Amino acid sequence: MPVVVTDIKRADHAVADSLAEYGVATVHEAQGRTGLMHQRMRPIYRGPAISGTAITCTLPPGDNWMIHVAAEQCREGDILVASPIAEAHSGYFGDLLGTLFKSRGVRGLIIDAGCRDIDDLEAMGFPVWSRSICAHGTVKETIGDVNIPVSCGETVVNPGDIIVADNDGVVVVPRLKAQEVAEKSRARIEREKTVRQRYAAGELGIDINNMRPRLAEKGLAYVTQSDYEKE
Amino acid sequence: MPVVVTDIKRADHAVADSLAEYGVATVHEAQGRTGLMHQRMRPIYRGPAISGTAITCTLPPGDNWMIHVAAEQCREGDILVASPIAEAHSGYFGDLLGTLFKSRGVRGLIIDAGCRDIDDLEAMGFPVWSRSICAHGTVKETIGDVNIPVSCGETVVNPGDIIVADNDGVVVVPRLKAQEVAEKSRARIEREKTVRQRYAAGELGIDINNMRPRLAEKGLAYVTQSDYEKE
Amino acid sequence: MPVVVTDIKRADHAVADSLAEYGVATVHEAQGRTGLMHQRMRPIYRGPAISGTAITCTLPPGDNWMIHVAAEQCREGDILVASPIAEAHSGYFGDLLGTLFKSRGVRGLIIDAGCRDIDDLEAMGFPVWSRSICAHGTVKETIGDVNIPVSCGETVVNPGDIIVADNDGVVVVPRLKAQEVAEKSRARIEREKTVRQRYAAGELGIDINNMRPRLAEKGLAYVTQSDYEKE
Amino acid sequence: MPVVVTDIKRADHAVADSLAEYGVATVHEAQGRTGLMHQRMRPIYRGPAISGTAITCTLPPGDNWMIHVAAEQCREGDILVASPIAEAHSGYFGDLLGTLFKSRGVRGLIIDAGCRDIDDLEAMGFPVWSRSICAHGTVKETIGDVNIPVSCGETVVNPGDIIVADNDGVVVVPRLKAQEVAEKSRARIEREKTVRQRYAAGELGIDINNMRPRLAEKGLAYVTQSDYEKE
Amino acid sequence: MPVVVTDIKRADHAVADSLAEYGVATVHEAQGRTGLMHQRMRPIYRGPAISGTAITCTLPPGDNWMIHVAAEQCREGDILVASPIAEAHSGYFGDLLGTLFKSRGVRGLIIDAGCRDIDDLEAMGFPVWSRSICAHGTVKETIGDVNIPVSCGETVVNPGDIIVADNDGVVVVPRLKAQEVAEKSRARIEREKTVRQRYAAGELGIDINNMRPRLAEKGLAYVTQSDYEKE
Amino acid sequence: MPVVVTDIKRADHAVADSLAEYGVATVHEAQGRTGLMHQRMRPIYRGPAISGTAITCTLPPGDNWMIHVAAEQCREGDILVASPIAEAHSGYFGDLLGTLFKSRGVRGLIIDAGCRDIDDLEAMGFPVWSRSICAHGTVKETIGDVNIPVSCGETVVNPGDIIVADNDGVVVVPRLKAQEVAEKSRARIEREKTVRQRYAAGELGIDINNMRPRLAEKGLAYVTQSDYEKE
Repeated sequence: MPVVVTDIKRADHAVADSLAEYGVATVHEAQGRTGLMHQRMRPIYRGPAISGTAITCTLPPGDNWMIHVAAEQCREGDILVASPIAEAHSGYFGDLLGTLFKSRGVRGLIIDAGCRDIDDLEAMGFPVWSRSICAHGTVKETIGDVNIPVSCGETVVNPGDIIVADNDGVVVVPRLKAQEVAEKSRARIEREKTVRQRYAAGELGIDINNMRPRLAEKGLAYVTQSDYEKE
Repeated sequence: MPVVVTDIKRADHAVADSLAEYGVATVHEAQGRTGLMHQRMRPIYRGPAISGTAITCTLPPGDNWMIHVAAEQCREGDILVASPIAEAHSGYFGDLLGTLFKSRGVRGLIIDAGCRDIDDLEAMGFPVWSRSICAHGTVKETIGDVNIPVSCGETVVNPGDIIVADNDGVVVVPRLKAQEVAEKSRARIEREKTVRQRYAAGELGIDINNMRPRLAEKGLAYVTQSDYEKE
Repeated sequence: MPVVVTDIKRADHAVADSLAEYGVATVHEAQGRTGLMHQRMRPIYRGPAISGTAITCTLPPGDNWMIHVAAEQCREGDILVASPIAEAHSGYFGDLLGTLFKSRGVRGLIIDAGCRDIDDLEAMGFPVWSRSICAHGTVKETIGDVNIPVSCGETVVNPGDIIVADNDGVVVVPRLKAQEVAEKSRARIEREKTVRQRYAAGELGIDINNMRPRLAEKGLAYVTQSDYEKE
Repeated sequence: MPVVVTDIKRADHAVADSLAEYGVATVHEAQGRTGLMHQRMRPIYRGPAISGTAITCTLPPGDNWMIHVAAEQCREGDILVASPIAEAHSGYFGDLLGTLFKSRGVRGLIIDAGCRDIDDLEAMGFPVWSRSICAHGTVKETIGDVNIPVSCGETVVNPGDIIVADNDGVVVVPRLKAQEVAEKSRARIEREKTVRQRYAAGELGIDINNMRPRLAEKGLAYVTQSDYEKE
Repeated sequence: MPVVVTDIKRADHAVADSLAEYGVATVHEAQGRTGLMHQRMRPIYRGPAISGTAITCTLPPGDNWMIHVAAEQCREGDILVASPIAEAHSGYFGDLLGTLFKSRGVRGLIIDAGCRDIDDLEAMGFPVWSRSICAHGTVKETIGDVNIPVSCGETVVNPGDIIVADNDGVVVVPRLKAQEVAEKSRARIEREKTVRQRYAAGELGIDINNMRPRLAEKGLAYVTQSDYEKE
Repeated sequence: MPVVVTDIKRADHAVADSLAEYGVATVHEAQGRTGLMHQRMRPIYRGPAISGTAITCTLPPGDNWMIHVAAEQCREGDILVASPIAEAHSGYFGDLLGTLFKSRGVRGLIIDAGCRDIDDLEAMGFPVWSRSICAHGTVKETIGDVNIPVSCGETVVNPGDIIVADNDGVVVVPRLKAQEVAEKSRARIEREKTVRQRYAAGELGIDINNMRPRLAEKGLAYVTQSDYEKE
């Protein structure tokens, strides 16, 4: 039953490329706080943000065969999203595969399992976000799927969606929402500039946002220490 | 029922400032190995030690409103200690709030939950010790408390206590014990200098501390491999 | 009943020294994917690989006495492997002990528990792989064993075995297999060079390894998106 | 942007009903070892297996509003699958909601977060598989989605898919594969009967499956203890 | 510096006794969703709810001496709250201590560490909520405190506060709020009766609470599957 | 290189059988608090204690082939100890294998990985202590070892050692120490009877063990609440 879907539609490349500059936190906010992967997905080294289009694959426990199969489906600007079908921490990916994927123009790997050869991958500039760092090798005995919807980092990823990853984590942007999310991200960045200036100038969030009446309405009381202790 | 206590007593500022130089491990030893937060509290980047006086707040799950309220209670030399009332990993704090707190002279944040925008926070030099790094945004719907005793990192923190944080973790020094702890820390640092020199010169801890008789008394036997295998 | 075994046989030093250059992932592969410690064993700072011969000790909860006892059994080229007899995260080891062990020529510490003073240890160049970073101090009240077989990182370590540790993790090489593993590691490194070149030149792993027939035999189907959706 | 999809297609009810009897392990095997949720999804009490059709919803952190919205979309034979958009352990569901869902004929809840009132839920016979048991209450401030594809227990669930849950865990069967999986499950149960009888009669798996030649080919050696030690 | 405080004020006993019947979830709601311990605090066996007044103690790692010291401070109607000063999983408490505490009229133990002899404790009816079940023994070498404020289950507990524990978890009620919380709990139980009846009769929460206008205002859209896919 | 050692020496059967009655906590104490497995090793159902002699095997990730190979080495009175060479949670063992092992007189399974079919295993009375409960199936592609020393539950187990397992956990008794441990266990049980009676009669541990002078010497102070607050 396993399949490789060969003709997926990818999100617009210009948009995909543009999202890295907004960063994960902003993009995730811009699309209504959806699509963020679990915080266990961490970069193997601190580097710049990346964005690109998702090629997905599933991984049997301790078996990285489908990463090789997925490689053929990847092209310039893609990011591989690899999802084990059971919790696993083996090192599914190392410097050899890094070389292979880099030569195809792949921008990075998001893997909900282990990664190894992290020094080599950092040296060659191939970034990985993973659940674990683990040297344990994998076999090539059992097949899975390429380019079907997967769950990675506790989030649904469809092939062709946009992945944005930086040192805060990883977010998925649905293919058809990419343009809208890019615009909202840009707008958000603009708005934040003003807020940042006002904060830097010493203003408080509760004043800028006029929160005092609503805090009072919710029942927040400002008391002295001696009143608090009497309570 | 939620309150903001507005006139807390802070530990002496000169003492609070001085504790950073001794570091977390020493300060924790100097006060009888109490007050250390759980090892899950990790710095979002490796930087220098900080110390300061605690402003505390509680956080409803996924709601960072009280961080804004707490900001107003902070002043130069304070450190915010934020404690969620249920396990949470959302990114309660990012670069905008970092700007706000930095402009008030706050030295850092200790948060038993998630933090985001870690590159920006590192760039601006606002250190954070957190349970998670997570970009997930928070809401402003539910109120909590500011400057009441909280549990953070599985340790009780009273407002006005001293916080010391470095790359080993975070420790809390009760306000009224600050002077005593500072003195004991200094004495400990002095004593360790001698031990360090003797260790560097090749002496053993079991000799310096005359441990051999007590080890023998406890029943420790030195045996050969062949004796061990016969056993 | 606790013992210190004083005359253990160590693996050949030249071989022990040579393994660091191959790295953890390669050595672990070369010996049939055995001996790798659990991925929770992480370096306290990213540094170069080390290798050396194991001195082992067991640790009662929160008690580091046996590390002092083990120090005397260590000599140039050794690595201490410390295994708590119950899960523990206290800081069993810090800069003072680092000074002591470094002065004896010990190359590093593998500890399935906590470590502290990580800045000092990095500054002095004494690498540690640990389960936790934790400042909590330990006592010296209960004895354990030195140089008996231990479980560390969920792997059996015999005294005199070779330890290889790098940023991917930690692997144990049985004393008597050291020569064979070194040879196989070298051979593996050689083989990988060719593969790396072919990958860099754009070849696929499924072609280099002639995997297509076997993938087909396992039932992998290449389908279009529209076929996939009909399914 | 959040939506409630009101007219989802459900898997055939007779098939959905039939899958409970095969159990999670068999169903998961019958569909090629896919669709199994993470082992953290545990029943709040040990009871019989259930199966039914999935109604899905997403949950903001600490906010159970969408469970109320999802209730209206549920009918006899459904199972609610609730997926938080960030890790959360609050008690999103308790005995009141249990009463509501039970009155609509819903067979159980699969929630990748917390549940409370477990004694009451057991007493009323409303089974729940959850990530946590936690009494912490939730708010109703933020909306999410109902009946879109979600990630629950690290697995993709589409509305209308079949859920099977028992004391081994939870598995998802895609709507269109239900009939095929039911047949394969039945066949597997049949085959296992024979194997069980042969095992009970003292036969070995390596004989029944003629594994000895393949084990030898892989290099497995049968040795004596003294040979092993010489090695 | 460690102390035993000998004359703590306890919450009113009649009130303390009454809270068990409301259960943890209700009590925690009645006091504004504060005071709930972390969900890792689980009963060693499923039994009835208990409530009583807190005697607190701190525990050095792997050392249960202070439990013996705390015993003397306990009397009929108390519950011991034991908090390790560093993460620990040893079995600090077993059937012998269970016998001792039961003979003093203590109603149970809340321990943020390990417990052993769980079959015996169940047989004698001495309930325990713990972080772990672990047989590892403890020593009696290092002292701590009795009846000071502690952090247990990531919550502040003051001696004399009321503890309520059931199969949903553990909640702490501040001594001076006990009467108010009891009243609010009772009121809540009453209100829930009506809701339960309406739910049982088939009404929806979104109708009972008139949520439809607010859902619409937040932007929730009801769409068909085909509309959703077009989006 | 993988081997099956075929002629291991087992601990004396009468002694092995006798240890179950003392239970895990007592046996572990009797041998100096060594040999206890990590607390993550939990019974899949609460049942009586077992003891027997260890047959060991290693498991590649997601591969249970060696359990079949190990079966042939098992005989009446044995307990299988299965140790994965990398963290894994798949269901390596279910009711079919339970039937096979039961028919050979094996008393139970200790597996540092996942187990499935827990209802069937409970029904047939085949107890398992495991790291996880997980239905995910395994393959038979990669070989490992049988009857070599393994690390299971973070403890070294040699083939032929005695395993004792009950609802508190699992402990390993070295083959040659079995007789001594049995005697010390019996003696300990006897001693505890007296202590239990004295505790039941209301005596305190600090009196029975004359701890007051040593507590005072360590510096423990009994103070009033008002003194404590002044401090």
